[in-house]
Amino acid sequence: MDVKAPRGTQDILPSESEKWQYVEKVLTNLCRTFNYKEIRTPIFEHTELFQRGVGDTTDIVQKEMYTFKDKGDRSITLRPEGTASVVRAYVQNKLYGLPTQPSKLFYFGPMFRYERPQQGRMRQFVQFGVEALGSADPAIDAEVMALAMNSYQQLGLQSLKLVINSLGDDASREAHRNALMEHFEPYRTALCNDCQIRLNQNPLRVLDCKDDRNHPAMKNAPSILDYLNDYSSTYFEEVKGYLDQMGIPYVIDKNLVRGLDYYNHTAFEIMSDAEGFGAITTLSGGGRYNGLVADLGGPETPGIGFALSVERLLMALEAEGITLPIDQKLDCYLVALGEEAQKEAVRLTYQLRKAGIQVDKDYMDRKFKAQFKAADRLHAKYVIVLGEEELQDKIVNVKHMKSGIQKEVPVNQLVDYLNKELQGGNEHD
Amino acid sequence: MDVKAPRGTQDILPSESEKWQYVEKVLTNLCRTFNYKEIRTPIFEHTELFQRGVGDTTDIVQKEMYTFKDKGDRSITLRPEGTASVVRAYVQNKLYGLPTQPSKLFYFGPMFRYERPQQGRMRQFVQFGVEALGSADPAIDAEVMALAMNSYQQLGLQSLKLVINSLGDDASREAHRNALMEHFEPYRTALCNDCQIRLNQNPLRVLDCKDDRNHPAMKNAPSILDYLNDYSSTYFEEVKGYLDQMGIPYVIDKNLVRGLDYYNHTAFEIMSDAEGFGAITTLSGGGRYNGLVADLGGPETPGIGFALSVERLLMALEAEGITLPIDQKLDCYLVALGEEAQKEAVRLTYQLRKAGIQVDKDYMDRKFKAQFKAADRLHAKYVIVLGEEELQDKIVNVKHMKSGIQKEVPVNQLVDYLNKELQGGNEHD
Repeated sequence: MDVKAPRGTQDILPSESEKWQYVEKVLTNLCRTFNYKEIRTPIFEHTELFQRGVGDTTDIVQKEMYTFKDKGDRSITLRPEGTASVVRAYVQNKLYGLPTQPSKLFYFGPMFRYERPQQGRMRQFVQFGVEALGSADPAIDAEVMALAMNSYQQLGLQSLKLVINSLGDDASREAHRNALMEHFEPYRTALCNDCQIRLNQNPLRVLDCKDDRNHPAMKNAPSILDYLNDYSSTYFEEVKGYLDQMGIPYVIDKNLVRGLDYYNHTAFEIMSDAEGFGAITTLSGGGRYNGLVADLGGPETPGIGFALSVERLLMALEAEGITLPIDQKLDCYLVALGEEAQKEAVRLTYQLRKAGIQVDKDYMDRKFKAQFKAADRLHAKYVIVLGEEELQDKIVNVKHMKSGIQKEVPVNQLVDYLNKELQGGNEHD
Repeated sequence: MDVKAPRGTQDILPSESEKWQYVEKVLTNLCRTFNYKEIRTPIFEHTELFQRGVGDTTDIVQKEMYTFKDKGDRSITLRPEGTASVVRAYVQNKLYGLPTQPSKLFYFGPMFRYERPQQGRMRQFVQFGVEALGSADPAIDAEVMALAMNSYQQLGLQSLKLVINSLGDDASREAHRNALMEHFEPYRTALCNDCQIRLNQNPLRVLDCKDDRNHPAMKNAPSILDYLNDYSSTYFEEVKGYLDQMGIPYVIDKNLVRGLDYYNHTAFEIMSDAEGFGAITTLSGGGRYNGLVADLGGPETPGIGFALSVERLLMALEAEGITLPIDQKLDCYLVALGEEAQKEAVRLTYQLRKAGIQVDKDYMDRKFKAQFKAADRLHAKYVIVLGEEELQDKIVNVKHMKSGIQKEVPVNQLVDYLNKELQGGNEHD
């Protein structure tokens, strides 16, 4: 039997997993300072949710979902993104009824899209995202963008660019939509097949097409920014004003439309121009979706959010040559010699662990020298030696590996001794 | 549209999610002291893995899996448990080739079983588990049981019982299997349908049957402990000896067989007899599986592991009336008055957050009083007031809510002031 992980999925092994833990810790703490609270939604949802909540005309829903029937004959889909699920949970659990609005939520978790796997694009990938539901204050658009930028900056990333646009409200979008249809209609047959369909269903997404991006009609396509009505245009000005206020630089890209159907007003992406990537790369994006809560059965409620792929974040760290501060060392390794000492080693190891001290021992029946070698391979800071003599005298020999300094310590003082040493209370650590 | 979360799944909302975070932090730190490292495997695997790695005759594989075809026509299954995936990853990534054996791994994550949902039994549930691969030292069986018990004890649980048994090695199991078949054969037709099949496929599991547990033939069924050969019996004695050495109490239950096919030698469960449960409840279990790595295409490698359901762990905490030490308070809330002050509030809020201070502000266009009320609802420890006067004087008014003490603080000293206050550097916190 030779079973491999399914195509487009990966195992995250020790040493790599510690990077993930670190990133999660930093982002969780960032959310704490911004007062976003964690929500966890199921891995799968009723398929209908994504058809409605992501949009029937999107590539995600049309081509990329893991959809199947469960044993109860329900159509179930592994979530392709986080927003629809969070909004569903907000509606189902009536979070809109809480007096503490807006509801500021964050999530971490695997998402699933059946695409051709490539560098930075897996079929199972992990997203971190936030959603702020219940506020139509442009200051919260700026807050979400600030949090998004800080997700990278707090990990040390620098080659970042915040790109923003406004898609306007429904009326502005409708006016722009008509202008786009009129503009592209003469070139219809010159566009790719997908775009010919998009032109009827959602002409905004023609601007987003990778195949047609060099078509001359793209250049002078009507910009949404020329079709914003007063409310939309004031809203966008205020969002930019708050970004200025916070000192966060941005550029405006009037062609930025994002791949999902539900956005209005603010849309943004964070790009990296780190040399390691070769070309400018989109790291993450987000936007406002004022109609989504009502679409999913809740009361009219404004919302804005963003999501990033943790895989790409890790790639960006690599591209900028950033090493995360992860301690791969083991605090203590216990070397024991002889049958009786082995028994005492089990007891002592457990006692130290119960006191919160990280310690490991041999489980491979290794000889004395090989145990030392094992300690070395695990990068032990301290090696505790327990031979038959030590056993009799109720002491152990503690060796600080970096300095080579050894000390006899009575077994009943070992916890205190190690705690002091490990907390840096001595000169040779 | 009225879409709900799929049956048997749940949303974990803020305040509940903080309990999960806390539990994960404690268990991750426990793994650190025992030197187990995290591994993350995909949410789904090729169906074959579980047929082979969990066992074709188990209820899990026969009745409970979420199995479907992906767009590439592969048979894919949402993982019903963690061990098969971890062992697959160990083999595929050749972790057996590392010099640092045994490989001591832990995992956290959602698992999926299509069962009738009931209290403590969800279709999507979260397991925490560990696997120690590469060692046949009975001391590591004891280590895994110690870690399992400490997973609960570190969170304050006390009504715990460790129940152990030995299933012996292949030869012992074969002898026992034959004795069981012989013993139950005369009662075949009196057993439930499932057990009639089990009697041929895996008679050990008849002992595990809930329907037949009161059948008189159960009482004097042959015990595996009477069929252990010398190696198996010595192994079991040593495991018990190490538990004694560590001071971990246990009881032996010769009928404990566990639901999965792959166990041999040590099998164990942790039960709770907390009053809140009404009856004794199994919280988690584990055991040794020396054949599994080879079964899944790796070299002959011994292994042992355990897994617990986080949902049941949280139920146990509730049953014992344990409250986790979670801080639901907000550090600071910024109340701003007037248009100009609102702008400055955006800047100041961001500045404080960048300095690592938790702060929130109003995004609902609330009046002065309502902002104070919002601060109160979020349990703000400090309220920072910024009116037009303060704006002009470049100061803010910081109120410590518990004591009512107020202080004017220059804006450029605010970070320092709050850091000192929040770190408990003053008398009134």
